[in-house]
Amino acid sequence: MIKPGVFPMSQSEYIKQYLQVRSFSERLCAPLETEDYLIQSMPDVSPTRWHLAHTTWFFETFILKPELHTYRSPNERYNYLFNSYYNAIGDQYPRPKRGLLSRPTVQEVYAYRQHVDQQMQILLDEMSDIKFDKLKSFLVLGLNHEQQHQELMLTDIKHVFFQNPLFPVYQKQTLDESSSTTPPYSWTQFGGGQVKHGYSGDGFCFDNETPRHDILLQPFELGNRLITNGEYLSFIEAGGYKQPKLWLSDGWAIINSGKWDSPLYWVKQDDKWSEFTLSGLLPLQPESPVTHLSYYEADAFANWSGVRLPSEFEWEFAARGLKSEGNFVEGQQFHPRPVDDTQDPDIQQMFGDVWEWTRSPYSPYPGFKVDEGAVGEYNGKFMSSQMVLKGGSCATSSNHIRSTYRNFFYPHSRWQFMGLRLARDVGNGG
Amino acid sequence: MIKPGVFPMSQSEYIKQYLQVRSFSERLCAPLETEDYLIQSMPDVSPTRWHLAHTTWFFETFILKPELHTYRSPNERYNYLFNSYYNAIGDQYPRPKRGLLSRPTVQEVYAYRQHVDQQMQILLDEMSDIKFDKLKSFLVLGLNHEQQHQELMLTDIKHVFFQNPLFPVYQKQTLDESSSTTPPYSWTQFGGGQVKHGYSGDGFCFDNETPRHDILLQPFELGNRLITNGEYLSFIEAGGYKQPKLWLSDGWAIINSGKWDSPLYWVKQDDKWSEFTLSGLLPLQPESPVTHLSYYEADAFANWSGVRLPSEFEWEFAARGLKSEGNFVEGQQFHPRPVDDTQDPDIQQMFGDVWEWTRSPYSPYPGFKVDEGAVGEYNGKFMSSQMVLKGGSCATSSNHIRSTYRNFFYPHSRWQFMGLRLARDVGNGG
Amino acid sequence: MIKPGVFPMSQSEYIKQYLQVRSFSERLCAPLETEDYLIQSMPDVSPTRWHLAHTTWFFETFILKPELHTYRSPNERYNYLFNSYYNAIGDQYPRPKRGLLSRPTVQEVYAYRQHVDQQMQILLDEMSDIKFDKLKSFLVLGLNHEQQHQELMLTDIKHVFFQNPLFPVYQKQTLDESSSTTPPYSWTQFGGGQVKHGYSGDGFCFDNETPRHDILLQPFELGNRLITNGEYLSFIEAGGYKQPKLWLSDGWAIINSGKWDSPLYWVKQDDKWSEFTLSGLLPLQPESPVTHLSYYEADAFANWSGVRLPSEFEWEFAARGLKSEGNFVEGQQFHPRPVDDTQDPDIQQMFGDVWEWTRSPYSPYPGFKVDEGAVGEYNGKFMSSQMVLKGGSCATSSNHIRSTYRNFFYPHSRWQFMGLRLARDVGNGG
Amino acid sequence: MIKPGVFPMSQSEYIKQYLQVRSFSERLCAPLETEDYLIQSMPDVSPTRWHLAHTTWFFETFILKPELHTYRSPNERYNYLFNSYYNAIGDQYPRPKRGLLSRPTVQEVYAYRQHVDQQMQILLDEMSDIKFDKLKSFLVLGLNHEQQHQELMLTDIKHVFFQNPLFPVYQKQTLDESSSTTPPYSWTQFGGGQVKHGYSGDGFCFDNETPRHDILLQPFELGNRLITNGEYLSFIEAGGYKQPKLWLSDGWAIINSGKWDSPLYWVKQDDKWSEFTLSGLLPLQPESPVTHLSYYEADAFANWSGVRLPSEFEWEFAARGLKSEGNFVEGQQFHPRPVDDTQDPDIQQMFGDVWEWTRSPYSPYPGFKVDEGAVGEYNGKFMSSQMVLKGGSCATSSNHIRSTYRNFFYPHSRWQFMGLRLARDVGNGG
Repeated sequence: MIKPGVFPMSQSEYIKQYLQVRSFSERLCAPLETEDYLIQSMPDVSPTRWHLAHTTWFFETFILKPELHTYRSPNERYNYLFNSYYNAIGDQYPRPKRGLLSRPTVQEVYAYRQHVDQQMQILLDEMSDIKFDKLKSFLVLGLNHEQQHQELMLTDIKHVFFQNPLFPVYQKQTLDESSSTTPPYSWTQFGGGQVKHGYSGDGFCFDNETPRHDILLQPFELGNRLITNGEYLSFIEAGGYKQPKLWLSDGWAIINSGKWDSPLYWVKQDDKWSEFTLSGLLPLQPESPVTHLSYYEADAFANWSGVRLPSEFEWEFAARGLKSEGNFVEGQQFHPRPVDDTQDPDIQQMFGDVWEWTRSPYSPYPGFKVDEGAVGEYNGKFMSSQMVLKGGSCATSSNHIRSTYRNFFYPHSRWQFMGLRLARDVGNGG
Repeated sequence: MIKPGVFPMSQSEYIKQYLQVRSFSERLCAPLETEDYLIQSMPDVSPTRWHLAHTTWFFETFILKPELHTYRSPNERYNYLFNSYYNAIGDQYPRPKRGLLSRPTVQEVYAYRQHVDQQMQILLDEMSDIKFDKLKSFLVLGLNHEQQHQELMLTDIKHVFFQNPLFPVYQKQTLDESSSTTPPYSWTQFGGGQVKHGYSGDGFCFDNETPRHDILLQPFELGNRLITNGEYLSFIEAGGYKQPKLWLSDGWAIINSGKWDSPLYWVKQDDKWSEFTLSGLLPLQPESPVTHLSYYEADAFANWSGVRLPSEFEWEFAARGLKSEGNFVEGQQFHPRPVDDTQDPDIQQMFGDVWEWTRSPYSPYPGFKVDEGAVGEYNGKFMSSQMVLKGGSCATSSNHIRSTYRNFFYPHSRWQFMGLRLARDVGNGG
Repeated sequence: MIKPGVFPMSQSEYIKQYLQVRSFSERLCAPLETEDYLIQSMPDVSPTRWHLAHTTWFFETFILKPELHTYRSPNERYNYLFNSYYNAIGDQYPRPKRGLLSRPTVQEVYAYRQHVDQQMQILLDEMSDIKFDKLKSFLVLGLNHEQQHQELMLTDIKHVFFQNPLFPVYQKQTLDESSSTTPPYSWTQFGGGQVKHGYSGDGFCFDNETPRHDILLQPFELGNRLITNGEYLSFIEAGGYKQPKLWLSDGWAIINSGKWDSPLYWVKQDDKWSEFTLSGLLPLQPESPVTHLSYYEADAFANWSGVRLPSEFEWEFAARGLKSEGNFVEGQQFHPRPVDDTQDPDIQQMFGDVWEWTRSPYSPYPGFKVDEGAVGEYNGKFMSSQMVLKGGSCATSSNHIRSTYRNFFYPHSRWQFMGLRLARDVGNGG
Repeated sequence: MIKPGVFPMSQSEYIKQYLQVRSFSERLCAPLETEDYLIQSMPDVSPTRWHLAHTTWFFETFILKPELHTYRSPNERYNYLFNSYYNAIGDQYPRPKRGLLSRPTVQEVYAYRQHVDQQMQILLDEMSDIKFDKLKSFLVLGLNHEQQHQELMLTDIKHVFFQNPLFPVYQKQTLDESSSTTPPYSWTQFGGGQVKHGYSGDGFCFDNETPRHDILLQPFELGNRLITNGEYLSFIEAGGYKQPKLWLSDGWAIINSGKWDSPLYWVKQDDKWSEFTLSGLLPLQPESPVTHLSYYEADAFANWSGVRLPSEFEWEFAARGLKSEGNFVEGQQFHPRPVDDTQDPDIQQMFGDVWEWTRSPYSPYPGFKVDEGAVGEYNGKFMSSQMVLKGGSCATSSNHIRSTYRNFFYPHSRWQFMGLRLARDVGNGG
């Protein structure tokens, strides 16, 4: 799970960062009513209350219980209720039933958070440097873990609100309308060759970004920006959802059985398309990046365009020199926004806005090893039938993402901020 | 739906009763946290918040909107969200998704109730006698409707709490432990003959209790009291759930596919039986009436006992002269209690405690007619595949029940307070 | 199961009847290819091969094994494969998987039949009168049982063939087109009063037709004939499947979830209705009785007509004096046919053509007792959630039916030859 | 689909090969009863009759209809019934319902085969060299396609027979018991580096084996032989199915929901393991290669062993120099057999016996393009969520397999002859 390495910050800086990340989770909940914390709208979605408790349980389980002998949990059953999938820790309350629990109350969960935060401060304050070094990696993992759940809190509450014909609004706002028009789609060429791939450096990374290893890349071209709603609408209007030859077999099956004819959250009323956002139901903005697509839809769009999706290797290679700047959660848009003039015109919107589907199945890198303990269950056991996504989204923390970061979802998943950028081979356009 | 008839109370008495019934719904919610109002633990169950809103919608839809021209709904979408099954009124939000809605909030629903109550008072206060006569039947229906939902609020929240490994407590209390021992099972004989069956009188009744008509009854015997937990436990311990010959075919299928081996809410821990109640998980009380049985289980118990369940005709005939006294919701036990000495020893516990399964399918009486309007959907359309239950339960209002009252549920339903009393033919014991 | 009584035939006459019934099963299979014997098109349907074997197993199990000590089964596993639902006999191969078995082959099943028939003849030939008296009732039950399966063989193979876009033909023929036109719908009045109901006599009847008992009937009127395709088509064209107020709640749910908009086997091509029959896909005949309706559809049609379905008590009362003549399986039409002039114009088509749905749930008669042994599982355990049908169909043997006969199916079942006749109260038309 | 290339055989040799392949399909059916041809035991399985017809439809559709103007199909509906998944050709009869068809009969399907074979001979005999060159690639594709279905015919009939408690036998025989004992597991090292991967040559290959391209391989070690039943039994007995840490998350879910505790076809009776084979239920042979494993099980076994599965790149690299010799369908064992002395001891059983799961998801090679026409649907559209298997099995034709061949199945699939060989990194054992 955790790479040995230099963690460059001081103990007090870690404490500060701990408090920042923890309080940001609660800041994201500010617009919510108590009622909003409870709902599980599909098995993939967890109630907000559960996210708040589970991230707390993570620190309790992996740091407080083993390290602070005076630690007492407010309720020993929380270990059953808020364990997500760590079989090494014990049984778990069934995931699809998380929405059936009214207790502990939201207030009790906040008290649980406060309790754990206080105990964490006691632990961290009193701790010797030597001991701190030992648990630093768990601490940093816990913070990255909580940031991942912050993203899920936003995408999950969006899904919850969408079930409601009242279309609740998480944050009132006019979406940013860039006056500049979207530049035409153009291609930037990248040379191939033998290159290093995977994480290298002194900071934190997840185990699935390692080990860094050599790969062979053939030359390729990458699109200069994300695909927009307007472009995706052209695909729909050209009958894209009705041409089986554009689709993977599993994709064709699911768009038919699920009656999918547009991205998740697109709503057609009186022949006009709207898009459900965290700011409510808004008219579809043609210049905004398309989002909430499954892999199947992204792949079909690429096929229709006569090209393909990038591999994770290509994407990462192209992103290497770039600063991870963009439309992140700190910008509080909670929605992708049209391309603007501030980025390198050759390669824009690589970070933030939407996670970009790659054509790469989520597999272990050569030499990848799973950790022995419970944290070994963090990433490795999901390495089948999922696809890699890159770049982060408008719901990702800016200090959470990097070019080597590998997100992964099943190809049918759509409720994250997922979009696409095109790629093609050099020379023959496909 | 509504029988023409004398409604003997004055206008102001009706207003008083309206306010009493309405406020009792809210009183039942006093022990709940906001979180508890939201959960739908299975499709049959509705969130408490929904019950509060739906009963309010009933008055809004059938009285305020047609009668009070100045009436404005706080939200026109409530007509979609809180219509249960009245197709004549319009489409309905899908029943199995009632638990996916976080809005309107609980507070907004209380405001909705207050709004409707105020408008109802305005309407009732200003109304001429003539006009009042016209809507009286709807008013009384609305109150009986709300009483039915009060019962469901209790049985639904019990089901919700049971999903939670924390076993929340609705009302702390020691259950009433009668010092008297349960009398032995004995039989009271009733003569048969041609008798009148169905409602007769000036008060309110549901349409399904009419028309009163002649039936032929053969002589029969009825058990003196409800079957107890102790007696049902003997059935379990004798292998009752493992002997197919005791079971209806559909019942045998469901106890096997559902792995049922005891009533709903019975929990076996370390070889000791407990029972989940609205006062939490308590040791099983052998003297208490057994409850939360399906029809299949009640029928199998009767077969095992060598006798049978009563028909609804027999039960009603036996109950004719009796006062409807017993353990009702006003007693605030929210659980059946052992028989005591206060009732006629020949025939005890006929009213209250638990609804008693009869062997009678829920069918229309000869000459039954469905009302033309939307209220015609109240009872008649459910007359297939369900069974009649009699007598009310510990969650029923005492002024809601009568001997002719016909409750009905599918034979597999168990989450109401459902129990049984035995019957047998005269002479041959079966 | 079996009523004690006089079985008036001689031993040799029984043997003759045994051979007749047994060979008729095989005659019904004459048009089938080996491949047709194998298919199970839904869990309710059994492969023809299974019917042939199961009816044989019945004689083997209830007569040969207990009575003929030299009897050896060709394969002891048949007892597992061909037991339908007799738990007292042992476990059963799962019903929904009957179509997964390719062995024993059809030829082996015919050999099994021959083996059992030979052994039955040995047994019956050598048997003393005393012993014969003892097993006579099982013998007669077995023959009636086989006749029931003969009907299922026809309705099941029809369902199997309907899955096939080649629309196979069981029996080529032009359906009987009566030149006479269908008489208008008219009503015959029957007086009520206290009457006897249930079987009485010396012949065979099923246990569920007993005990004969007194009932009270109110005066009623019964339609003179079956409802025709043309009349049912009017109901469809008047939007009958789109008006929720006509439907029972469970019925409305199933026609929507199952997308039912016409009887089973009706096929609309180029705006013209056809009907799949055992003679293939034929143009819909407006004068023929409508068939393959669920109870819900029959009930909705009656509601739309402003009247109702008869009760089983009314139907039986009306049928008392009538000869059971009509369009039975011996006529080899295998399809209901238009009314003709040969019957009493007041009350036609009571027997044969289609089973008539009644509004009566399938319940035990007062005093009904289930037999102790395995045959006690024959009828009684199905007495929940099903409805009674009367009169037999074009797939019923003429000597199998009588006015007291109670057939029963779930209200959603449609694959039998099921149709309807209307009834109404005297005086008020409903 | 079809690589341009030299097809080295003469026209008459192709005709000969056509007839050989076609008649081999029928030879495989020799042991079957008519009844066996019909059954579909799960959606993945097709009835034998369907395989015979579908492979015939393939030649009819892609060669006869476009090339032979006088060609007439025996039944135009066959195009609907026997199209598998070629959307470009038209709609298809739903795959999960293939077992609901009794017609066309088996005999009619054989007549269909004969008809197409005759027409093919007419076409091929009369054809000019130029025209023949044009359709040669379709012809060869059709033959390879039929060989794939020959394998499926065997694995599907095995699954069908397994549903039957009579355990039918496809081919009576004593399985080959090698007197030699299985050699200990040992490792052969392979150097890494930049190597060519994918098909190169003049013969036929599938499109998914191309384009040949450079890859980087790290040094690795491959096990000398297949894992045996005995070794897999040790994994079971060590609690392998009960340790979540050994399993991929999806795998853990499926072994629990499906109650898997051993390979498909293993049967435990009286504490003794048997294995269902095409020769019936036989005692488990510890020396035989384990087969009928899902990817999840193969992966868990490798984890338990402290090593891993090979990638498809490693496997193919290791197999490059080897002759594709082994236990193929021509040997008519229809079951994997213990290792023998005839192969290179360093690397045995690479071809034949069982398909070997690799850790490589089934993805397009860089530069892979899908063909324009209907045959473009052959392979490419399945490139999501499946895994690559290598080497062929005891049900594969020896002239069908090669080192570059990529078979693919979902990770939960088990009904093919699927087994495993281990691999590990050089130096650190994992």
